Amino acid sequence: MPDIIYLLEMIGVVAFAISGMIVAQQKNMDPVGVFTIGFVAALGGGTLRDLMMDNHPLYWIKHQEQPILILVMALVFSYAGLGKRIRESRIVFPDAIGLGIFSILGAQLALDLEHSWFIASLLGVMTGTFGGALRDTLCNEVPFIFRKDQIYASISFAGCWLYFVCQWLLESETLALTIGLLFIVIVRMAAVRFDIRLQRDSHH
Amino acid sequence: MPDIIYLLEMIGVVAFAISGMIVAQQKNMDPVGVFTIGFVAALGGGTLRDLMMDNHPLYWIKHQEQPILILVMALVFSYAGLGKRIRESRIVFPDAIGLGIFSILGAQLALDLEHSWFIASLLGVMTGTFGGALRDTLCNEVPFIFRKDQIYASISFAGCWLYFVCQWLLESETLALTIGLLFIVIVRMAAVRFDIRLQRDSHH
Amino acid sequence: MPDIIYLLEMIGVVAFAISGMIVAQQKNMDPVGVFTIGFVAALGGGTLRDLMMDNHPLYWIKHQEQPILILVMALVFSYAGLGKRIRESRIVFPDAIGLGIFSILGAQLALDLEHSWFIASLLGVMTGTFGGALRDTLCNEVPFIFRKDQIYASISFAGCWLYFVCQWLLESETLALTIGLLFIVIVRMAAVRFDIRLQRDSHH
Repeated sequence: MPDIIYLLEMIGVVAFAISGMIVAQQKNMDPVGVFTIGFVAALGGGTLRDLMMDNHPLYWIKHQEQPILILVMALVFSYAGLGKRIRESRIVFPDAIGLGIFSILGAQLALDLEHSWFIASLLGVMTGTFGGALRDTLCNEVPFIFRKDQIYASISFAGCWLYFVCQWLLESETLALTIGLLFIVIVRMAAVRFDIRLQRDSHH
Repeated sequence: MPDIIYLLEMIGVVAFAISGMIVAQQKNMDPVGVFTIGFVAALGGGTLRDLMMDNHPLYWIKHQEQPILILVMALVFSYAGLGKRIRESRIVFPDAIGLGIFSILGAQLALDLEHSWFIASLLGVMTGTFGGALRDTLCNEVPFIFRKDQIYASISFAGCWLYFVCQWLLESETLALTIGLLFIVIVRMAAVRFDIRLQRDSHH
Repeated sequence: MPDIIYLLEMIGVVAFAISGMIVAQQKNMDPVGVFTIGFVAALGGGTLRDLMMDNHPLYWIKHQEQPILILVMALVFSYAGLGKRIRESRIVFPDAIGLGIFSILGAQLALDLEHSWFIASLLGVMTGTFGGALRDTLCNEVPFIFRKDQIYASISFAGCWLYFVCQWLLESETLALTIGLLFIVIVRMAAVRFDIRLQRDSHH
């Protein structure tokens, strides 16, 4: 089980890092900028979560293979100009996995530290979405999660609560994690596919 | 006394949350954005203060009724479209109370942790003003406190020092808090009313 | 030796504070804004480093003479309008000293806390560059370190590794620090003088 979780985490980190590097290259940043935005997108959520809960050493300090991987990816991206060749639509699926796994593991860590379901769901959402918000802010765009775009943070919030309820009813963390993760991934893919939003823009 | 302090804190949190939700709705954000900006405006200052002083658990983790209240407010604001109906001038008074109570309680917490008057006054100003600065940055505006607008952060700074001196001279925390708080609220209201600034813009 | 290090730190803090105050005055900020941007530019890197490593009390809380100095500088800058009179080219040299000393001392602190060379080099770069990045973000500009400008963060990264290798080979911290610091300062000055970049903008 821990091996599968770590594999899912790695998929999330790589997907989020790629999303950051694509934006950074569209903004014509140099390799340092590509690495920084990739790092922030992939590891920013976990860093915020750890700081909020005073959980040290930070995730990326404990797992230094992850920033090393991001550094190698940034070099490849920069010198091969990958960021302008990968279509953003290709990362929707790994990004959804990252959103799911980061949200649920962030929430679980909060439960381990004896926080309530409500606080844990907020910390789960922060873990899942903060990296992307910081990526957009640093690239001088209105963060994705604040635009009236397809639902994103609310799926993470609902997925965390589904996970808590399943864990409580089924008394199996593995089964609960699977259900919560599948829920977030499937609903997120459906939201993009069928353009589901919380609120229509009133100007249309 | 603690009850009155908590009541004042709640007024400050609600006022700051409303200020955030108004800006978020003017920017056409969806309910998630409205909640996030409201949360950041109301609880960002206290979070920064607690992180700087390594004071855990964070204020909003300890008082989870406050993020819950902000979530309920965000739903009401979003679906009733309140943010476009409340005039910003209506929140000047509760915002001044929030500035006052957050500044002085932030500074007092620093004194409790044995910091000097100078460090405590900086932490008081951060507690009082950071939420609003972050709100403006996330909404892609030059933060209010950096514009040559009516004085704001400097009132908080002066109010903290007045509080320290009163506490030292009068040996009564209650009396000192009352004087410091009244000073900040009255001077802030006067600054808005009579358009008091630190420096005139030289282009006029 | 500690005296010389503290002197170099002070030079770095003053140089970074001046860089922040120049930008703040170009943006027509009032004295509060000038102080805040100066503070953030000078002390933001060390604050991020301390938060990431859970190293409390923070640098500027322990050395309160530094925020006091920045406050005095901000008053002088504001009322004498210095920010519009100092040419930015005049701070390239002290800024290079600040980059060098902050990077290497940040990295050394990470080594003292038993982190690996790789993690320590990341923390060194953060200490050296985060203040400037935050200064630019708060002033609503694309951060300097993300533009395809003369190399900056990469010099800090290379300088940290040179410092580690020298320390390991020469078994003298003083000599290693001198070599690493000279490397960063000289290469940074050369990069500005001869316009050395990591990547040319492809639109030229």
